[in-house]
Amino acid sequence: MMKILIINPNISSSLSELIATEARRCAAPETEITVLTAPFGVAYIETRAEAQIAGYAVMQLAAEHYADYDAVIVAAFGDPGLEALREMLPIPVVGMTDAALASAAQLGGRISIIAISQRIQAWYRETVEREGHLARLVSIRALDETLSDISQVQQNQGERLIELANQAVKQDGADSIILAGAPLAGLARSVSSQLPVPALDGVSCAVKQAEALIQLYPNQAQRSGSYALPPRKACQGLSQELALLIGGEIKDQT
Amino acid sequence: MMKILIINPNISSSLSELIATEARRCAAPETEITVLTAPFGVAYIETRAEAQIAGYAVMQLAAEHYADYDAVIVAAFGDPGLEALREMLPIPVVGMTDAALASAAQLGGRISIIAISQRIQAWYRETVEREGHLARLVSIRALDETLSDISQVQQNQGERLIELANQAVKQDGADSIILAGAPLAGLARSVSSQLPVPALDGVSCAVKQAEALIQLYPNQAQRSGSYALPPRKACQGLSQELALLIGGEIKDQT
Amino acid sequence: MMKILIINPNISSSLSELIATEARRCAAPETEITVLTAPFGVAYIETRAEAQIAGYAVMQLAAEHYADYDAVIVAAFGDPGLEALREMLPIPVVGMTDAALASAAQLGGRISIIAISQRIQAWYRETVEREGHLARLVSIRALDETLSDISQVQQNQGERLIELANQAVKQDGADSIILAGAPLAGLARSVSSQLPVPALDGVSCAVKQAEALIQLYPNQAQRSGSYALPPRKACQGLSQELALLIGGEIKDQT
Amino acid sequence: MMKILIINPNISSSLSELIATEARRCAAPETEITVLTAPFGVAYIETRAEAQIAGYAVMQLAAEHYADYDAVIVAAFGDPGLEALREMLPIPVVGMTDAALASAAQLGGRISIIAISQRIQAWYRETVEREGHLARLVSIRALDETLSDISQVQQNQGERLIELANQAVKQDGADSIILAGAPLAGLARSVSSQLPVPALDGVSCAVKQAEALIQLYPNQAQRSGSYALPPRKACQGLSQELALLIGGEIKDQT
Amino acid sequence: MMKILIINPNISSSLSELIATEARRCAAPETEITVLTAPFGVAYIETRAEAQIAGYAVMQLAAEHYADYDAVIVAAFGDPGLEALREMLPIPVVGMTDAALASAAQLGGRISIIAISQRIQAWYRETVEREGHLARLVSIRALDETLSDISQVQQNQGERLIELANQAVKQDGADSIILAGAPLAGLARSVSSQLPVPALDGVSCAVKQAEALIQLYPNQAQRSGSYALPPRKACQGLSQELALLIGGEIKDQT
Amino acid sequence: MMKILIINPNISSSLSELIATEARRCAAPETEITVLTAPFGVAYIETRAEAQIAGYAVMQLAAEHYADYDAVIVAAFGDPGLEALREMLPIPVVGMTDAALASAAQLGGRISIIAISQRIQAWYRETVEREGHLARLVSIRALDETLSDISQVQQNQGERLIELANQAVKQDGADSIILAGAPLAGLARSVSSQLPVPALDGVSCAVKQAEALIQLYPNQAQRSGSYALPPRKACQGLSQELALLIGGEIKDQT
Repeated sequence: MMKILIINPNISSSLSELIATEARRCAAPETEITVLTAPFGVAYIETRAEAQIAGYAVMQLAAEHYADYDAVIVAAFGDPGLEALREMLPIPVVGMTDAALASAAQLGGRISIIAISQRIQAWYRETVEREGHLARLVSIRALDETLSDISQVQQNQGERLIELANQAVKQDGADSIILAGAPLAGLARSVSSQLPVPALDGVSCAVKQAEALIQLYPNQAQRSGSYALPPRKACQGLSQELALLIGGEIKDQT
Repeated sequence: MMKILIINPNISSSLSELIATEARRCAAPETEITVLTAPFGVAYIETRAEAQIAGYAVMQLAAEHYADYDAVIVAAFGDPGLEALREMLPIPVVGMTDAALASAAQLGGRISIIAISQRIQAWYRETVEREGHLARLVSIRALDETLSDISQVQQNQGERLIELANQAVKQDGADSIILAGAPLAGLARSVSSQLPVPALDGVSCAVKQAEALIQLYPNQAQRSGSYALPPRKACQGLSQELALLIGGEIKDQT
Repeated sequence: MMKILIINPNISSSLSELIATEARRCAAPETEITVLTAPFGVAYIETRAEAQIAGYAVMQLAAEHYADYDAVIVAAFGDPGLEALREMLPIPVVGMTDAALASAAQLGGRISIIAISQRIQAWYRETVEREGHLARLVSIRALDETLSDISQVQQNQGERLIELANQAVKQDGADSIILAGAPLAGLARSVSSQLPVPALDGVSCAVKQAEALIQLYPNQAQRSGSYALPPRKACQGLSQELALLIGGEIKDQT
Repeated sequence: MMKILIINPNISSSLSELIATEARRCAAPETEITVLTAPFGVAYIETRAEAQIAGYAVMQLAAEHYADYDAVIVAAFGDPGLEALREMLPIPVVGMTDAALASAAQLGGRISIIAISQRIQAWYRETVEREGHLARLVSIRALDETLSDISQVQQNQGERLIELANQAVKQDGADSIILAGAPLAGLARSVSSQLPVPALDGVSCAVKQAEALIQLYPNQAQRSGSYALPPRKACQGLSQELALLIGGEIKDQT
Repeated sequence: MMKILIINPNISSSLSELIATEARRCAAPETEITVLTAPFGVAYIETRAEAQIAGYAVMQLAAEHYADYDAVIVAAFGDPGLEALREMLPIPVVGMTDAALASAAQLGGRISIIAISQRIQAWYRETVEREGHLARLVSIRALDETLSDISQVQQNQGERLIELANQAVKQDGADSIILAGAPLAGLARSVSSQLPVPALDGVSCAVKQAEALIQLYPNQAQRSGSYALPPRKACQGLSQELALLIGGEIKDQT
Repeated sequence: MMKILIINPNISSSLSELIATEARRCAAPETEITVLTAPFGVAYIETRAEAQIAGYAVMQLAAEHYADYDAVIVAAFGDPGLEALREMLPIPVVGMTDAALASAAQLGGRISIIAISQRIQAWYRETVEREGHLARLVSIRALDETLSDISQVQQNQGERLIELANQAVKQDGADSIILAGAPLAGLARSVSSQLPVPALDGVSCAVKQAEALIQLYPNQAQRSGSYALPPRKACQGLSQELALLIGGEIKDQT
């Protein structure tokens, strides 16, 4: 059995439900999925600042819970906290953006991302670049209306999203499409037949990549390299679990 | 059930057995593995020229057999014929190099490749660059003796390979290691505990990536983009299966 | 008068003193320097995970205090939280790494970084890349002993640091040297005559760059682009100041 | 006297005639041109898959005939088999794309490619990138009608091609134009006065580059590096000439 | 006191006045500004050729005058002669383009350049690339009318320049704007409130960067690296000052 | 007949003789070679500053003499003034570095440069990068003794140069070697049989590339793009020929 912890870095429990539904639909029979929701932060991450906040929330949840799991998934596009978790945890850590891009790349050619807000594009682009996939990205196209209900965007904006995807194929030369962001979890599956190129979403890609990594490189702390534990050092103001995880010695606060 | 066709682009049936053993060991229970051996070519691909020959052999085998499978794996480091197959087949096509690099990248940081011959390094490096992973590659290190028996290299050179991997970690700053080439299939699994960073091999990575893609993007021909079928055109001298696959009209040879 | 807030993302108040001393020494007469120390985190940031924690601490301090200042400096190499602050604050935000690299680049040629621990190198390199200066970086060289007292590293390791800098010039082809990290604040000034190329440190570079930006682009919120405020949205669990800053509507927690 | 073997990787003998005409028109008086047509493959290469097939056809022809020549030219845009031939042959091997780009680059600035089909663009772009010229490429513009007769495209589509070239100059900022593909051989010469920037075609560039390389680096096998002969190894199913060329030991097939 | 020599590489003394006015407006109280005009060259540099001429004029002026100054600024966009001066002079040398880009980069995100002529764009783009900032550049937009009076372009074309800047923000995704070229000196300051993102100009950025470098790395010749003096060698036909500066031994011309 | 003007940007007439000898040896029978020596500058260009001076000398000679020629060659490694000439002249302009790299690239793989002084390496590397060939460069290796007589370096240092070339092949992975700089003109030809990979020199490559371009794109001014003539503008202090060439209106100096 593979136990995967999915952390929703947004505070929206309705998004966590969307994520859980798609994750369970695509997981292997022997995979058990748990979804946790960020205890603090914002409803839907669109900016570098919101991602920075979310990264800390993700670390706290991971520190408390990882010991019971075989892999962790960070389930917001932009992958907040991804590298920090990879460095701390002795189990594989998968990001939605990174997993979707790694999967799409293996279908061949160039990729477009369809996003749910204009404001989110710069952060997405920087994420794609930071994770090393920029050369494959031909465009990011995004909805330009304010979203009244983030958990209903598939229903309310479905047709417009398909239209954007078709534009990405025809005008930008995309060979595959990523329907980005947790609010679009599962949409790729349902609209696949309406698009002339493969469409993927981050949640299902992340689940399959997590299952793959669990089997390829099971639980084991690195003893060397830049993902090994750093030297012990004083820390303060951290939860006990987080302090323990990063090898901190809790500093006497007198 | 997922049916995966693995094509060994080398003519060595002993390598095909090695590949099949490791592939079956790591495949999901519902996966069925078939391994075919290139009908023409060389014993072990080390050069651009040998890869060019192998690419054609791979195309012929794929054209004849793909219709019965859910995905195809090209099982030689350097991925001969990979892009050609991705373009022609309506099912996912996975390369050993590409799959290993995509998997290693998701463990984080930078990667070294351990290879079994000096001569092979330039071709490996060009493959890594062509597939978009060069920024993560810190080094390729290789055995420098002539190999008497390609199917026994794990037994005969196992310690030297571990030594090279340790050098890659300590001197080159590798955060993970790929033990490259079909002759090393399965070695990553057995030496994992002797290395201070994750070690992966191409065969198992390719199987897991193929299973993932089958579930993420099931069998479907692309109708647009650069992987869609080209316009029909005259062809000659091709096997009937290959001609059919690329949309060729067999030219009258009178 | 220019008022600059320097945030030390480490919890070490002895480092804050080092930073304050060097900052005041190089600041313009009309500049007033305030240094605040992170209320939670670790003694000295060396990893991606520690930087992720520090980024959140930096955001909290900035949210509480920025309104009284003309610019903010993030005073740890690796620039934790830099992009998040730039996005939120209507005043210039300068990072130690970014400022040192921007200054060194204007002296011409290629740059080496001298660091105080081996473990810190990967994070430094990723920072340099993320901030767009990788093409100029010829090497990072680092002390390899465990440091007993981070605030005494200049005294205890001064000669070894000069030796590393000379190696960077002779063996790596560096045209300038950055003595990196808050613990080395001021060292560049004192060892300058012993090095055959220019040496810079992050604190003084950041102060001069902050003064420059205050005069070039005074206090003003962006109304467009990816650094403008995002749409208002629900948030929870954030300090009131932080919520206010990112435009969050505090979510009713009933 | 310089003897140049031009291999047309397409099966169309009408294209071979076009190529031969332009090659002889621009060759030095002391150059003797021979053009051979691929014995198998497709009428006109537009895809990665067709290029993979062509690469093998090119290798077979080269193996049989190179011994009588001073240089070989691969005469299809996309340069199928180019690197394989460079590796095997002790004489210079020139590709149409590579030669056109190397020549255009020496006229200065940035380059556009005018192509004869939409479908061909992705393969062209990947070729330009693989050969290291991507930074100079500002656009690829292509005819969008199906071509009734590949050998008449200059006559039938001449004006539209000039129009595309002018758009590349005015809208994309091209400083020179490559009229790409063997079917356009010679067009650059005839339309040159109608274009406001230099126009080049691949056949004439390849002939001049081949003549240059023959004189700069006469016939000589490399004894070291990644273009030297690989260790001898078993092979099967190859023509005797090809086996000989790659150093294969023909494997006993019992 | 800091003494800064600004060299106007154009022959237009009206431009020198514009430059001097803006430079003095933004300089620190303790800074003394001197502006010299190129004794030969063109009215306004727009091309690589004009920049090559200007580079030599700049060297001559610098050689004659640098000894009395703490820093030199090259005050034409495109930075003619910048690297040559950095190599020869023992004091910091700042370029308008380089300083503007380094400053804008520290405000975050991506940058557009607004230029005063179409013809100048290629040279600007090559400068941005050569100086290592190309990844941040989203566009160059330029006036397309012939300019009757280069010193009146702010008055005559002010509204059109603001319009171009707004297009760069909305259509190209610019997070900041550089109003480029000496003729636009000071415009950023006056139109700042009409633009939705930060606007900078090269003259004020260069002055602030020069002041910063003077304080960070005071007057000192490099003894090593690629900016150290080359071995003495014969020279001829140079002004005595220039010969002296580059370490030339004046060749006997008999 | 093709008439090629070679400009030696160094003031050494002994170098001009070396250049002329090698140029005539490799030129086509119908090519006429003229070599001119820079009237001012230094004995042997090693730095950015010396190249800046040389660029102006090259422009003056070209302006005076180009009208009688079919192509111009700039015959110093580092290609001083190359882009300026390309922009001004209606005939092809070839640089030694650019031509050598373009030729070596067509032999395949990666390249090392062997140089005659340590100090010259940074300038060479920057030239290779500026001209777009950096990805192929594996190393620059250089003599480290002071050269007593630049025109005798082949005789005096021949063995050491071969040794450096062999190191480049074995230790750096070079697939070809460029023996750089006018003082090594012709050496590639004479030592070719002692090296295990192809060796090229800049003079002969430049001659062959110039001949190629003359035939590919005969004399014709560009009417559009960034190499077209700029708008007429005031100039002063230039030779009449240079003023005429850049379209300058000589400014009244009263």
